Amino acid sequence: MTASNISTLRVDLGDRSYDIKVGSGLIERAGELMAPVLARPRVVIITDDNVAPLYLDALTKSLNAAHVQTDAITVPAGEQTKSFAQLESLSEKLLELKVERTTTLVALGGGVIGDLVGFTASVTLRGIPFIQVPTTLLAQVDSSVGGKTGINTRFGKNLVGAFYQPKLVLADTEVLNTLDRRQLLAGYAEVLKYGFIDDPDFFEWLEINGKPLLGGDIGLRREAVLSSCGAKARVVAEDEFEKGKRALLNLGHTFGHALEAESGYGGGLLHGEAVAIGTAMAFDLSHKLGLCDGQDFGRAVAHMKSVGLPTDFSTLNAKDWTVDALMNHMSRDKKVEGGTMTFIMVKGIGKSFITQDIREDDLRQLLARWLS
Amino acid sequence: MTASNISTLRVDLGDRSYDIKVGSGLIERAGELMAPVLARPRVVIITDDNVAPLYLDALTKSLNAAHVQTDAITVPAGEQTKSFAQLESLSEKLLELKVERTTTLVALGGGVIGDLVGFTASVTLRGIPFIQVPTTLLAQVDSSVGGKTGINTRFGKNLVGAFYQPKLVLADTEVLNTLDRRQLLAGYAEVLKYGFIDDPDFFEWLEINGKPLLGGDIGLRREAVLSSCGAKARVVAEDEFEKGKRALLNLGHTFGHALEAESGYGGGLLHGEAVAIGTAMAFDLSHKLGLCDGQDFGRAVAHMKSVGLPTDFSTLNAKDWTVDALMNHMSRDKKVEGGTMTFIMVKGIGKSFITQDIREDDLRQLLARWLS
Repeated sequence: MTASNISTLRVDLGDRSYDIKVGSGLIERAGELMAPVLARPRVVIITDDNVAPLYLDALTKSLNAAHVQTDAITVPAGEQTKSFAQLESLSEKLLELKVERTTTLVALGGGVIGDLVGFTASVTLRGIPFIQVPTTLLAQVDSSVGGKTGINTRFGKNLVGAFYQPKLVLADTEVLNTLDRRQLLAGYAEVLKYGFIDDPDFFEWLEINGKPLLGGDIGLRREAVLSSCGAKARVVAEDEFEKGKRALLNLGHTFGHALEAESGYGGGLLHGEAVAIGTAMAFDLSHKLGLCDGQDFGRAVAHMKSVGLPTDFSTLNAKDWTVDALMNHMSRDKKVEGGTMTFIMVKGIGKSFITQDIREDDLRQLLARWLS
Repeated sequence: MTASNISTLRVDLGDRSYDIKVGSGLIERAGELMAPVLARPRVVIITDDNVAPLYLDALTKSLNAAHVQTDAITVPAGEQTKSFAQLESLSEKLLELKVERTTTLVALGGGVIGDLVGFTASVTLRGIPFIQVPTTLLAQVDSSVGGKTGINTRFGKNLVGAFYQPKLVLADTEVLNTLDRRQLLAGYAEVLKYGFIDDPDFFEWLEINGKPLLGGDIGLRREAVLSSCGAKARVVAEDEFEKGKRALLNLGHTFGHALEAESGYGGGLLHGEAVAIGTAMAFDLSHKLGLCDGQDFGRAVAHMKSVGLPTDFSTLNAKDWTVDALMNHMSRDKKVEGGTMTFIMVKGIGKSFITQDIREDDLRQLLARWLS
């Protein structure tokens, strides 16, 4: 392939600006693509035991061919890896390897790896550079861009972490071929989010192209990744530290995080699946409050259903769940201010907004209905 | 006392700028002094079990009188508290208290508390505000200013952390009255540092005023704290992230950290004591390399000795220490670049400079001589 097959998006953040490169076969060309952003030709690749057998060799080979010295650390796959224990073990392994402030970490994996490695990079030696090589659709379109990093705590997801931008994101769309359908769908929920937030045309495009995209069409996948990264890059450039507009990207997430917390992060519920259900809940609540008409609500849920995303609690092991437990999870959300929860509601597809005016009663009624 | 007894210094860092307030009785007036920088009238005070009995009540009372809601968490005193375990336990306690991004942490204590609380603030909910109330001379003149926060690892001190600026520093010089002489002296080593780095007049002032200052003269203490904070604020404003000049503040620290690491952080060697010995080593090496004349070397060591600071290994339990072990600690310093160690050397009192041109041989000879 030629360089023209690579699309480059810029995340515009002053001296923290960086490129997102999207294309096929980028891992095999990682050496030449990464070299220009490395302070010194030394990286430590961090990946998980699912991804290592697939891509670690190719990535290492490419970097070595570009005269970049590599070490690699493999951690267990799964959400449980986003923990204090792994943060400690990883940073100590890095210190044992005598990383310097000019050594770059490479996060090779999905959202868990990106979040953990980004956070570890932000605190090791008070901050060393890192590069994202996202290997899931979800990580490519969402978590690898924008600098939110972190780990989970027993009080909820991502409650400890840092805003810390990568030096480069390499989204190799070829890796999507090795994802199983469930993982792909989970990522697709975050793709849809950009349509729901403020881009009804993109949603319409997805209504038409979602199925072939999920079915394997490489061109459509690439287009979806580019559109999603572009949307995210624009929001992040406007509001890096989530003082305002960036919160829109949490559409479906306040509900979704509560579902994940109750599910226990054991893999029973993927993040993207939780977001899909949470988005359906946000549309439902918006509809019930008279903010969004039934047609848009129906259309949103119908498309998610049609591709196979969950839009209710039927796949969850929720029979013992309570309204109080879900409310308690939501009350620990990072967007809570003065005890007031912030929600992303919709006035229709592509018409999301931020509000603190949701009454607890309405919320509890919604949760009770979804639990019943 | 009146407001005119408070001196205010500004640390100029754009939207991360903040004031350092120096004066007597500031803890009793903390409520009115802190209120203007609080996003919401809620703080969590974090202190240790040495400091809590002395000042926690007064601080709480003052905040409550200013209608600020307070919680308090007390952790064990001592360097061992700067650990991953405490970071995790503290951030989980904060989440349990349902802190929000508008809740401010107050670090009430010495350098250990300031470093731990600052780092915890930087990662909890990806960053919540914090205020420093340093209760040791060392913390007042050095660690509470400038935003370096962190914890220790088994590979060395402060190797994991963040650059994270407080919203305010309240240096109440009255608290120095409760410090024992050893703690006071340890802080004095960092005061001296500012003279050694680039202010020969300040060193001369300390030669005259050091003893009465240490003996209890309140006016002199206040003057020394102000001069030291001013010096630090200027350096930090120029080079927040230690890309250059800020490294000068590490005079005596590369050696000192190695001594601390070998001593095991058990309280046998205080940080300021390690810095005093490290500074003597830096002068010695500079002298041996023909950079600094014997008179300045002698004068520096003589003053430290005259006030009772350690300037050799005689008080350390160093009989089993080796050159290799010390070299190994120094090679993990955060300032190492491309395998090359960075040192702060002196051309005389008030004439420090940064260099990477120290040969391993010279270093090993120095260490061997100090160990013998």
